[in-house]
Amino acid sequence: MRVSQTNLAGDLLLHLGQPSDGPLHERVKRALRTAIRNGRIEVGTALPPSRQLAADLSCSRWAVTEAYSQLIAEGYLEAQTGSATRVRWSDNPDADSLRPAARHTPAALFDLAPGLPDLRAFPRRRWAEAVRTQVTTAAFTEFGYPPPGGHIRLRQLLADYLGRSRGVAATPQDVTVCTSVTDGVRRVCHALRADGITAVGCEEPGWTRLREVVRAAGLDPVPIRTDSGGLRTDDLAGHTGLRAVLTAPAHQFPLGTVLVPERRAALLRWARRVDGVVLEDDYDAEFRYDRRPVAAIQGMDPTRVILFKSLSKILSPALGIGWIVAPPRWTHHLHQTDQVATQPSTLDQLAFATLLESGAYDRHLRASRKRYRNRRDTLVQALAQQLPGAPVSGIAAGLHLILRLPATVDTQAVITAAATRSLRVAGLAAYHATDDHNDHGLVLGYGNLADNAVSEAVRHLREAIEESR
Amino acid sequence: MRVSQTNLAGDLLLHLGQPSDGPLHERVKRALRTAIRNGRIEVGTALPPSRQLAADLSCSRWAVTEAYSQLIAEGYLEAQTGSATRVRWSDNPDADSLRPAARHTPAALFDLAPGLPDLRAFPRRRWAEAVRTQVTTAAFTEFGYPPPGGHIRLRQLLADYLGRSRGVAATPQDVTVCTSVTDGVRRVCHALRADGITAVGCEEPGWTRLREVVRAAGLDPVPIRTDSGGLRTDDLAGHTGLRAVLTAPAHQFPLGTVLVPERRAALLRWARRVDGVVLEDDYDAEFRYDRRPVAAIQGMDPTRVILFKSLSKILSPALGIGWIVAPPRWTHHLHQTDQVATQPSTLDQLAFATLLESGAYDRHLRASRKRYRNRRDTLVQALAQQLPGAPVSGIAAGLHLILRLPATVDTQAVITAAATRSLRVAGLAAYHATDDHNDHGLVLGYGNLADNAVSEAVRHLREAIEESR
Repeated sequence: MRVSQTNLAGDLLLHLGQPSDGPLHERVKRALRTAIRNGRIEVGTALPPSRQLAADLSCSRWAVTEAYSQLIAEGYLEAQTGSATRVRWSDNPDADSLRPAARHTPAALFDLAPGLPDLRAFPRRRWAEAVRTQVTTAAFTEFGYPPPGGHIRLRQLLADYLGRSRGVAATPQDVTVCTSVTDGVRRVCHALRADGITAVGCEEPGWTRLREVVRAAGLDPVPIRTDSGGLRTDDLAGHTGLRAVLTAPAHQFPLGTVLVPERRAALLRWARRVDGVVLEDDYDAEFRYDRRPVAAIQGMDPTRVILFKSLSKILSPALGIGWIVAPPRWTHHLHQTDQVATQPSTLDQLAFATLLESGAYDRHLRASRKRYRNRRDTLVQALAQQLPGAPVSGIAAGLHLILRLPATVDTQAVITAAATRSLRVAGLAAYHATDDHNDHGLVLGYGNLADNAVSEAVRHLREAIEESR
Repeated sequence: MRVSQTNLAGDLLLHLGQPSDGPLHERVKRALRTAIRNGRIEVGTALPPSRQLAADLSCSRWAVTEAYSQLIAEGYLEAQTGSATRVRWSDNPDADSLRPAARHTPAALFDLAPGLPDLRAFPRRRWAEAVRTQVTTAAFTEFGYPPPGGHIRLRQLLADYLGRSRGVAATPQDVTVCTSVTDGVRRVCHALRADGITAVGCEEPGWTRLREVVRAAGLDPVPIRTDSGGLRTDDLAGHTGLRAVLTAPAHQFPLGTVLVPERRAALLRWARRVDGVVLEDDYDAEFRYDRRPVAAIQGMDPTRVILFKSLSKILSPALGIGWIVAPPRWTHHLHQTDQVATQPSTLDQLAFATLLESGAYDRHLRASRKRYRNRRDTLVQALAQQLPGAPVSGIAAGLHLILRLPATVDTQAVITAAATRSLRVAGLAAYHATDDHNDHGLVLGYGNLADNAVSEAVRHLREAIEESR
């Protein structure tokens, strides 16, 4: 069905849901994304101007521009200067053949959206070799159903590795192999819910996807503010009945802060006091450039912390390999509440185990750390040269940084203008659960940005910002 | 914690749940399996005699012996003639080191439990080569997040292949890559539930695991009887409000029947009348020995049928690759209700696509069909020689057959006696949701039985049966 441009909202019956489903801009984004994914809005379709859609939906224009900007960053929409915002992507494979013009839309040349490691640096030869070794030498019984919780060899190597590299205190039985951090958090949320927990504190700002996962599991995501010292643990006491909190203590997303030592202790005291649990998202803690990586808080109280981690920020999200480290009580609940748990292929589990065992994984991490640090230096330098007035923060670790923008600059306009230059960036505001904040700026991911594209990307960004004043 | 032998049930607080959770023997089995998996009962622990546990749990002895037998078949327990039934397996990796004696327990030498293809025949070299080709030649962008629904190349090849080999009518958009039939049914059940459907008709007898998946998704599994013509479609009308039914029309599990043509038509008429949906489990339809495989009913009405299939019965369950073919409406619901859907690794999806494209998958199927037909012939012949009185049925297709036993034989005792001979078999009664049936016999899977072990396995089975008269 071709959607008319003039009254898209009405025709599409965008279901924005209830206020309890999150802030308006997120609900608008979700509704649009779903309509695009399902093919209800075809590739190439022009969306109505934000003012008009806002009027149709009876919401603020900001919510619509924010939603558009995020969908541009995610690649669903494309913006062209002086023209309407159009649908650019669909997982409908016929879309291209239906609208040949769309085929020629260039992909983002400069990918500064956060969330990806350097896909060019995937250790292809080593991975292929590890798979080959396992596939050709494994006992035939390894081709049967994998045991619950994952292959024991990988669980043993992970327990050992995490103890060594992240200060994690875990036996192999405490490790459950899953497919991603979101998969792990989803499964734990179901276990929490089965145990009578109804809400999970979520960092504000924080990773939107995990907040959605918490909500989809039937739990209430409670925003807990963060500041320069990380999660404001004092605020936890203000939420009576709260017994679970999701946090990234080693490297807060998106602000890039570290949870300060007194708050690490306070967080665990809180968990013990309320008989609760801390969900520790350890997504990219290895990439620390100023000192040794901050150890996981899991090691400080393994009975109160569930740690999540995946290969998505280290090797590739295409592998679908992650793990949960949980105390026996929660591992037990996990196995009870999710009996159809999906695991990565046994062969891939064994291939990853081979990389861990041979030291290839460590070498990849070391090489990656060096590569990302150099790229960060280049990026920070380029930003200082081209955008001398804009403060940069969160640069000590990880694969992204924060670029604050003056209040005179329209962030959404920057994202849109950047997209017309094949530059994908994300707005800081998008990671807030509420509209009650002053975070004005961009989250610039450099994990998947080609080294030789950094200065050109920053030049395009400067132009986009200048255009949006 | 070591559990004392004399009052295991009381110590363990086995939670049998409610009658609505299924028949007693299943609930006892689940409770024991959970306790073993969680390490609450250690490897080597002797279970109380069935009479005693039955008294402790206030249930029939049959329910306990049935539960023990199934857990023996699943490898959790082991039986020794003249000795107590003991816990043999745990995913607790320390179990072995804690109890060195357990390390020497032989694995089942003769695996006649249904559900596995020949793990010895996994095309190792081809798979390793397909992965290597993909890993080394894929565009670097393939290492990013996979698109929702699976890699489009695999979806295209599957739509084409399924049309050719199974009479399935599907566009690539109708194909959703998932990790197994249970994963697919779980996801569809969540979508059904979100759409207001509350119950799913399940074949009686039928695959226990899927019944559990239906229940875990919050839907009511309604037993629908099957007979020599497959699912008794006339019975559907007796369940007012029922709008979904799960069936394996090409090869009923475990009875091995085919849904007769008039019932295929009746099933689709029923689905249209109640505005419902048929969940078609196409698990091993390729292995048909008497004629061409029966086409999927999906092709007869693609708007009313959702088809499920995986590589678990063809290549290996360790790969975790499956697919759902659904009409656009349900594909849409699937994407909406399960936004954290797990996919197999993109690299594995591409490797499988390579096997499909090169014809290697077809060749593997043809070679497998020949291998299984020969093995079935050997097995049927051995059964006729060693157990001339026992009727064999369901031999025209698939990887298992039914061996009926005289009423004078205690089936549970046979399973236990077989286990002491390292022979793993399953009881037909275990696949019934209720105790209201006369099915007296065994389900013998020969997919993963070594060719040179067939006659010895049957000799052991005969001895186990003779011992249980």
